[in-house]
Amino acid sequence: MKERICIIGAGPSGLAQLRAFQSAAAKGADMPEIVCYEKQADWGGLWRYDWRTGVDEHGNPNHASMYRYLWSNGPKEGLEFADYTFDEHFGKPIASYPPRAVLFDYIEGRVKKAGVRDKIRFNTVVRDVRFDNGKFEVTARDCATDKETREIFDNVIVATGHFSMPNVPHYPGFESFRGRILHAHDFRDAREFTGKDILILGTSYSAEDIGSQCWKYGCKSVTVAHRTAPMGFKWPDNWQEVPALVKVEGRTAYFKDGTSKEVDAIILCTGYKHHFNFLPDDLRLSTANRLAATDLYKGVVWVNNPALFYLGMQDQWFTFNMFDAQAWWVRDAILGRIELPEAKTMEADWKKRQADEDALADDYACIAYQGAYTQELIGETDYPSFDVEAANKAFYQWKKHKKEGIMTFRDHGYVSPMTGAMAPPHHTPWVKALDDSLEDYLQTEPAKTGQKIAG
Amino acid sequence: MKERICIIGAGPSGLAQLRAFQSAAAKGADMPEIVCYEKQADWGGLWRYDWRTGVDEHGNPNHASMYRYLWSNGPKEGLEFADYTFDEHFGKPIASYPPRAVLFDYIEGRVKKAGVRDKIRFNTVVRDVRFDNGKFEVTARDCATDKETREIFDNVIVATGHFSMPNVPHYPGFESFRGRILHAHDFRDAREFTGKDILILGTSYSAEDIGSQCWKYGCKSVTVAHRTAPMGFKWPDNWQEVPALVKVEGRTAYFKDGTSKEVDAIILCTGYKHHFNFLPDDLRLSTANRLAATDLYKGVVWVNNPALFYLGMQDQWFTFNMFDAQAWWVRDAILGRIELPEAKTMEADWKKRQADEDALADDYACIAYQGAYTQELIGETDYPSFDVEAANKAFYQWKKHKKEGIMTFRDHGYVSPMTGAMAPPHHTPWVKALDDSLEDYLQTEPAKTGQKIAG
Repeated sequence: MKERICIIGAGPSGLAQLRAFQSAAAKGADMPEIVCYEKQADWGGLWRYDWRTGVDEHGNPNHASMYRYLWSNGPKEGLEFADYTFDEHFGKPIASYPPRAVLFDYIEGRVKKAGVRDKIRFNTVVRDVRFDNGKFEVTARDCATDKETREIFDNVIVATGHFSMPNVPHYPGFESFRGRILHAHDFRDAREFTGKDILILGTSYSAEDIGSQCWKYGCKSVTVAHRTAPMGFKWPDNWQEVPALVKVEGRTAYFKDGTSKEVDAIILCTGYKHHFNFLPDDLRLSTANRLAATDLYKGVVWVNNPALFYLGMQDQWFTFNMFDAQAWWVRDAILGRIELPEAKTMEADWKKRQADEDALADDYACIAYQGAYTQELIGETDYPSFDVEAANKAFYQWKKHKKEGIMTFRDHGYVSPMTGAMAPPHHTPWVKALDDSLEDYLQTEPAKTGQKIAG
Repeated sequence: MKERICIIGAGPSGLAQLRAFQSAAAKGADMPEIVCYEKQADWGGLWRYDWRTGVDEHGNPNHASMYRYLWSNGPKEGLEFADYTFDEHFGKPIASYPPRAVLFDYIEGRVKKAGVRDKIRFNTVVRDVRFDNGKFEVTARDCATDKETREIFDNVIVATGHFSMPNVPHYPGFESFRGRILHAHDFRDAREFTGKDILILGTSYSAEDIGSQCWKYGCKSVTVAHRTAPMGFKWPDNWQEVPALVKVEGRTAYFKDGTSKEVDAIILCTGYKHHFNFLPDDLRLSTANRLAATDLYKGVVWVNNPALFYLGMQDQWFTFNMFDAQAWWVRDAILGRIELPEAKTMEADWKKRQADEDALADDYACIAYQGAYTQELIGETDYPSFDVEAANKAFYQWKKHKKEGIMTFRDHGYVSPMTGAMAPPHHTPWVKALDDSLEDYLQTEPAKTGQKIAG
């Protein structure tokens, strides 16, 4: 009987896995039977926009964390597919920080070309996975038909992401705060905050970007509270960084330095959790959000049961092409092209990786580290080799450009690690680009409708 | 070996079940071993306020649907416990429409007195239930310790409620609406909508009450769109009822009669679903929200497997005391004091109940029907008999008072079916009572701090 492979999730990682198997099949390999479960109604994972918040239309925690007017917060040159360039997809060069719809289109273009959609069971949520007698039993509910299936697999690949389940801390007074409290996960439209004083908790990408969005779309002021250190960018005049929140009373937020501020809304940019509510203890990854995840050999093999794999569970500088590197590697492990070592070697591997990570001096070293990891996996498969150093370089420059101007860094361009070509500039500076549609972005100059969503 | 009973949920129904077993034990009955799983950190079910929306602190869909400043929308005389009166709990008579905190206190008072808290495993979510070889296997995750248990039970009683999983329809343009869209389930504080134009979809209790809340706390206007018929109350001047929503564009909502309205927020009061994401197909109730639920003998026994029970799955006029009637009855079925008939008799029972329900002429008949159902179950157990007709009467008057004045009906009082006494008036008319705290409510006159949350 054919081996049966279960992929959970059809976002960037799950789609990379489908593409990896399809690529081998196209070269004549004998393929296992593949079933990919996707709880959303379409593919693309986080890159699929959903106006819903909280639970989805089927009563599952909503996967979507992205919001309207979201533009990539890192250069596209850092995430380009080696087997499917931006130039190939769009038929022309495009600028370096595309809005969400453009990146969704790019992700989709590759898998449409590969023809893997028929492997995916949409609207189907995995409810339980059990391992017994060397096989996995996967219980899934087709929410469209409201029927459950229970199927047996030889391997399970968990590709459900880890920027979907919000970490939502409590602060004293939240239960009686007289405005709105929401997590970044439920943020959808910056215009809901036009004219408002907003307080943001956190200093990572969500804080930086959601604050910038609210500022761009006319909020009255942004206050960002940090627990350890301020972000330290050159913020606009109506933006301040303050020490940690202590409590709220009425509409007043009190900070650790004794200052306070009246605010209308509190946006918790307090991160996400690795969360696998469909997995029992013996199969469930538990790791901090870091570059070298706990218990994963080569960053992908569950050391406690090497028939189980995880994709994309690391903290990320590299994304799409690192997921590819992982997916090709996992494919080859499943196909027997790569042999897994004994348990103690796998254990030593992730510990060594964590020790190496802990010794890294700064973000630049972290970028190089993850570039080297991606390179390492690629070197062991037939994924097209690419100029990882060029991708690293795009990230280094990106960091510099952010330091220079947090509201202007997206106006820069970078060299593609795949084609070696420099990206053209976008037709409109990011601060003035209020239309985030694919149509507007792909124009060579601002369309007459370019500002249509303003006002 | 002792029989083992699993109760899922420690809200009003689950607590009624614990109290029912404790009551029998107090009278000397030999008790089975009982485990009650509760995913929230405390008991009280929907009556526990939670500032969180979306997912809870453990990544489960948040149970809480109640909001700040929620006052009972029906008379307390319709839901009084027969074994624990309001007078007993509060030591004095109180008015008929208490705020949430007061009712929570009342629910809690009874179970504190009964001493059942040690049967409850808090922060523990049931992830799977399977029935095999005459027993139930229940898989639950203790989210506080992040450990899973798998235990065997003879009976399972599902008491998870059905006003917790929102039904969230999509309308054209929602994906690009420039304001906020939320379901009633995620509504928390009417002050978030002060000065705003709000659109409400739906005409049931949530629509009526959330609209009234927003009006009371100073929204600019309320527009309620109905699909079948307007609610027809005498609304304030800045409140209008309009035909069904067709689409939204930008901030403009378009209705079926060709009219339109600019709105800042859309609140979906579109109801809740019976949702049991922890149950497989063969154990999972599927019913409309109606007085006689499908597949439930006597409204509580799962006819396809009579070792499984459901509490409180009906649409409700009666609540707490009906849950008691059900819980006492289920207890006696489990203890063998009540014998279940053969399958075809149980099947005929719910079909007959549905036929009877379908023949009811109006809401008054529905109230009497559910009163009679409650009476029927009570008559078959030792639950204290009470004047069900007096409870019916409180409901009839309540409907009349709502017709007379939708913003004044809560200023009326009713006769207790337990004590026969008339409730005293509250110290402040509801439209002026901005403080919903227990402390303020229990004062005999408005406290100086009574309006402390205004402004």
